Amino acid sequence: MKNINLAFLGLGTVGGGTYEILKMNKDLIEKRTNCSFTVTKVLEMNQDRIKSLGLDPALQVTDPALIYESDDVDIVIEALGGIDFPAEIMEKSLLNGKHVVTPNKAAVAANFDKLKEAARKGNAQFRFEASVGGGIPALTAIQEALAGNQFTQVMGIVNGTTNYILTKMGDEGWSYEEALKDAQAKGFAEQDPTSDVEGIDASNKLSILMALCFDTYVAPDDIPREGITRVSMDDIKDAQAKNGKIKLIALASKMDGKLEYSVKPTFISNDHPLSGVSNEFNAIYITGNAVDELMFYGKGAGALPTGSAVVGDILAIAKNI
Amino acid sequence: MKNINLAFLGLGTVGGGTYEILKMNKDLIEKRTNCSFTVTKVLEMNQDRIKSLGLDPALQVTDPALIYESDDVDIVIEALGGIDFPAEIMEKSLLNGKHVVTPNKAAVAANFDKLKEAARKGNAQFRFEASVGGGIPALTAIQEALAGNQFTQVMGIVNGTTNYILTKMGDEGWSYEEALKDAQAKGFAEQDPTSDVEGIDASNKLSILMALCFDTYVAPDDIPREGITRVSMDDIKDAQAKNGKIKLIALASKMDGKLEYSVKPTFISNDHPLSGVSNEFNAIYITGNAVDELMFYGKGAGALPTGSAVVGDILAIAKNI
Repeated sequence: MKNINLAFLGLGTVGGGTYEILKMNKDLIEKRTNCSFTVTKVLEMNQDRIKSLGLDPALQVTDPALIYESDDVDIVIEALGGIDFPAEIMEKSLLNGKHVVTPNKAAVAANFDKLKEAARKGNAQFRFEASVGGGIPALTAIQEALAGNQFTQVMGIVNGTTNYILTKMGDEGWSYEEALKDAQAKGFAEQDPTSDVEGIDASNKLSILMALCFDTYVAPDDIPREGITRVSMDDIKDAQAKNGKIKLIALASKMDGKLEYSVKPTFISNDHPLSGVSNEFNAIYITGNAVDELMFYGKGAGALPTGSAVVGDILAIAKNI
Repeated sequence: MKNINLAFLGLGTVGGGTYEILKMNKDLIEKRTNCSFTVTKVLEMNQDRIKSLGLDPALQVTDPALIYESDDVDIVIEALGGIDFPAEIMEKSLLNGKHVVTPNKAAVAANFDKLKEAARKGNAQFRFEASVGGGIPALTAIQEALAGNQFTQVMGIVNGTTNYILTKMGDEGWSYEEALKDAQAKGFAEQDPTSDVEGIDASNKLSILMALCFDTYVAPDDIPREGITRVSMDDIKDAQAKNGKIKLIALASKMDGKLEYSVKPTFISNDHPLSGVSNEFNAIYITGNAVDELMFYGKGAGALPTGSAVVGDILAIAKNI
């Protein structure tokens, strides 16, 4: 059995969830991949968190160079959050030939070309399935099983917080403020919900989807964007009267060579598959010139669902090491 | 650029669709994979079909040994239909080190262990994404991006013909006979619809899903099965009165180590994601202990959608050659 050494940057929700899955499904993963996985380094300030996950506190490092320059690290799992600092560590890791897996959409979207180039130069694999749609394995499918398609459109409900709020406004008649408070109480929304409700998070994900589907990088800030803060109960009732719903849709389509893209509240008819995507669920709806319409649906957030995608990337890399 | 030699066994709907995609998206596929693809052999009785696809009639062979023993074939695409004959050719191809791709669920389900073993012995890749759910890339996801999960349940609407009939009975109030006739007129149902309406096709697909999700092979004939011929308009109206629909569901679940499975008409509540899967569409709904609930939705049949999955398998193999 091949042993693969892992370094975790951050053991918060997703980093911790990833480690939990590797522990919980250890036997099955070893049997399926013929690989075992050893954590050799952890960059995580919170010693209690390291211990509570059952990891040896002696694995803790505070200097990231001890990870990206280490001979004992095959795969770096970046789950710190933020943009510049994690991007810098990922770039250095890749240039040093370390494979990198990350769920960090903001860092990937802001640095897409740079990180892909670092992977090429370092002859390392760079995977970020968890960065869009959490556990939904859409990015891998777009790049692999669907690689024979010319894509014409990608549409996504890629932010669980806003989908939860819009669902509750529509189904329960709650006001935006009530729904947001409930989402915060349930842990679906952060205390400062700006990135979600203003569509910033969805723009990051659309930037990544466009890079993969259309081989075209558009910076998240260059995507026309409208969040959900101005969606009124009247808008929602109007949509219902027309047999539909308002959803925050990240959309990119390519017609006659011209790429159009936006993130904005959009009317979705009740007979469209995306209309059934409720609460905190996410979905990616994609159209290719061979496969026609396809939808991937699942949990876009959470420790284990997102960790599932990170683990999938780790196993894909392990297979090729 | 690496050149990969392909042999087609059968150029009917799926074989022809596969070739059409390779032609239609040639530039994009070459750019994405850095591989070019050349058809070197074709086993297809219909010369006109070969010509109408733009292939050289001189590629035609009638003896399959000229394919599986050829030095000019890297990947065999088996799209003949049937069970024993294609299974024998696939086995011999794999044993001879040829990679094999097939959409043939009946042949795969009836010979799963034998074909996997032949692939192992011949050190060849054996892929069959198109055998379940047509263009939907669920099998690859189950084996790769979701490989970190212990699966607890898989539920599928995996037969487009029966889903079309049940949809029309429910939405339009058509009788079973009317809906079947319409499906036949539209090309969704064969003139002898037995395999579809009696759940045989769905059993083949469930056998494959179980082998992948639960590492357990159950022969299609050993799956308890009930088709849709006894679903009455009363059953459908009862379901509607209870806010649901009747769907032909292929289900396998594993609880406390015990695997249970069946193909049968099943009540699906309108708030379940599978309830929105209408007409000829298919969906695979899967539950894993990390990713939680996930659904893949798309076209389960047709030349280009199914060909999309075959091409995905060809490209995946090409990457590893």
